[in-house]
Amino acid sequence: MAAGTVLETVTAEEASRVIDAAAAKATEIGQPMDIAVVDAGGNLKAHVRMDGANIGSITIAINKAYTAIAFQCETGDLQELTRPEGPIYGLNDAHGGRLVVFPGGIPLVREGSIVGAIGVSTGTIEQDQEVAEAGVAAF
Amino acid sequence: MAAGTVLETVTAEEASRVIDAAAAKATEIGQPMDIAVVDAGGNLKAHVRMDGANIGSITIAINKAYTAIAFQCETGDLQELTRPEGPIYGLNDAHGGRLVVFPGGIPLVREGSIVGAIGVSTGTIEQDQEVAEAGVAAF
Amino acid sequence: MAAGTVLETVTAEEASRVIDAAAAKATEIGQPMDIAVVDAGGNLKAHVRMDGANIGSITIAINKAYTAIAFQCETGDLQELTRPEGPIYGLNDAHGGRLVVFPGGIPLVREGSIVGAIGVSTGTIEQDQEVAEAGVAAF
Amino acid sequence: MAAGTVLETVTAEEASRVIDAAAAKATEIGQPMDIAVVDAGGNLKAHVRMDGANIGSITIAINKAYTAIAFQCETGDLQELTRPEGPIYGLNDAHGGRLVVFPGGIPLVREGSIVGAIGVSTGTIEQDQEVAEAGVAAF
Repeated sequence: MAAGTVLETVTAEEASRVIDAAAAKATEIGQPMDIAVVDAGGNLKAHVRMDGANIGSITIAINKAYTAIAFQCETGDLQELTRPEGPIYGLNDAHGGRLVVFPGGIPLVREGSIVGAIGVSTGTIEQDQEVAEAGVAAF
Repeated sequence: MAAGTVLETVTAEEASRVIDAAAAKATEIGQPMDIAVVDAGGNLKAHVRMDGANIGSITIAINKAYTAIAFQCETGDLQELTRPEGPIYGLNDAHGGRLVVFPGGIPLVREGSIVGAIGVSTGTIEQDQEVAEAGVAAF
Repeated sequence: MAAGTVLETVTAEEASRVIDAAAAKATEIGQPMDIAVVDAGGNLKAHVRMDGANIGSITIAINKAYTAIAFQCETGDLQELTRPEGPIYGLNDAHGGRLVVFPGGIPLVREGSIVGAIGVSTGTIEQDQEVAEAGVAAF
Repeated sequence: MAAGTVLETVTAEEASRVIDAAAAKATEIGQPMDIAVVDAGGNLKAHVRMDGANIGSITIAINKAYTAIAFQCETGDLQELTRPEGPIYGLNDAHGGRLVVFPGGIPLVREGSIVGAIGVSTGTIEQDQEVAEAGVAAF
């Protein structure tokens, strides 16, 4: 039916490798996590909810990954900017409930281009960030 | 913060096994697929979008799995019931755009209890169903 | 703030060229149109509502372009498949109100890869399709 | 089907002129932007995402323009009013995720009547405002 195939950015193999590395770190620190990878368009490529991870964090993990694509930055970079006295306070209310402005979402970068992102949720923000970084390191 | 952990139904290991079996069948028939597994609460447990699968089928696959939990049946069972002359015509309009009424979603059953579901999308409905059945067979 | 830049698929210059060609055809046939171009991720790249075009067609045009990305096909290809007796009847209810299953949305293809899509709405489906094709021809 | 045509407020030619002037300023300051123009009804008239601008800012730019129409003011005028100690704290939560309460959205005024608005996003709020003002100046 198609005239072609939508260009892949992050591949399924890469997404799997990133999630496995993140899950290994989550296991190491004893904190089950929701882990999501999206492609450069912000569309879900893969997701795993480890046993014991939060149901609510399914969406938070996906939205962290989406936010990292949406604003070309780590979600943690938005934290101070969006606090009550910050210059873009209110950003997280301005996009239909899809943005996350605390750590745990990080772009996946290849040769200067953001080709996907990982989002991690359920733990503390320090844990989420640590697990996301472990995923990025495997990319 | 919690005194316990939400009851696990399908585990991450089981979801991974189901998805891997489904993906193997998809590869065998030469049709990349979106494959999702949800738990007994209808919440996403794991998802993979194979390279070349549809972006639009992310949501369709997840919603097929959700529908199989939501109505305790295969999504294909709803097809004739919901056609214009059927007894529950309109069902698919009645749930905010989350129901799928054609094949590709199947419950995962353990000892008579539905503990999760698989949803598959991108191919023809025959292919989607075949791949979903391959996933169920590995459960 | 960013570690890189999200990979561009269809460029702003290309989107502008496609929309201008579509608008020229719309003017030629005397039917003002909403015209949208999305990138490979289904995200809006550019949009124009010609004077006299429908307000309701803003979303229909954007969703036609999104649907062409989402299912890697022309929206018109989905029409017979989703009719009451068709194999995927109900598809258009299964994705939260984002899918359009009649003509007017066409992928933009470069060297075998779908890198974007155009969506056109306000006229008859024949007019919408003709104007979308004029846009594609300029890509 | 209609006996008339919905009243045009800002025209497509005007929207194009406003966006081109804003984009020229964005290029001058070296910051690619999402730029949207809505009509007096708050409905999208035209949009351009410059190469390198944020995907997440598509919605933010459109919502800035919408907010400027919705409350007949610049979005920056809402910033202090909506902070935690302000009189309308919570406004940005009260409209389904469509309001933006920081600079970058400005009404387009003709002979004392607001006939449309421009919204700009991706840069700092100072840059967004500067680019929006350049667009307004061309109206």
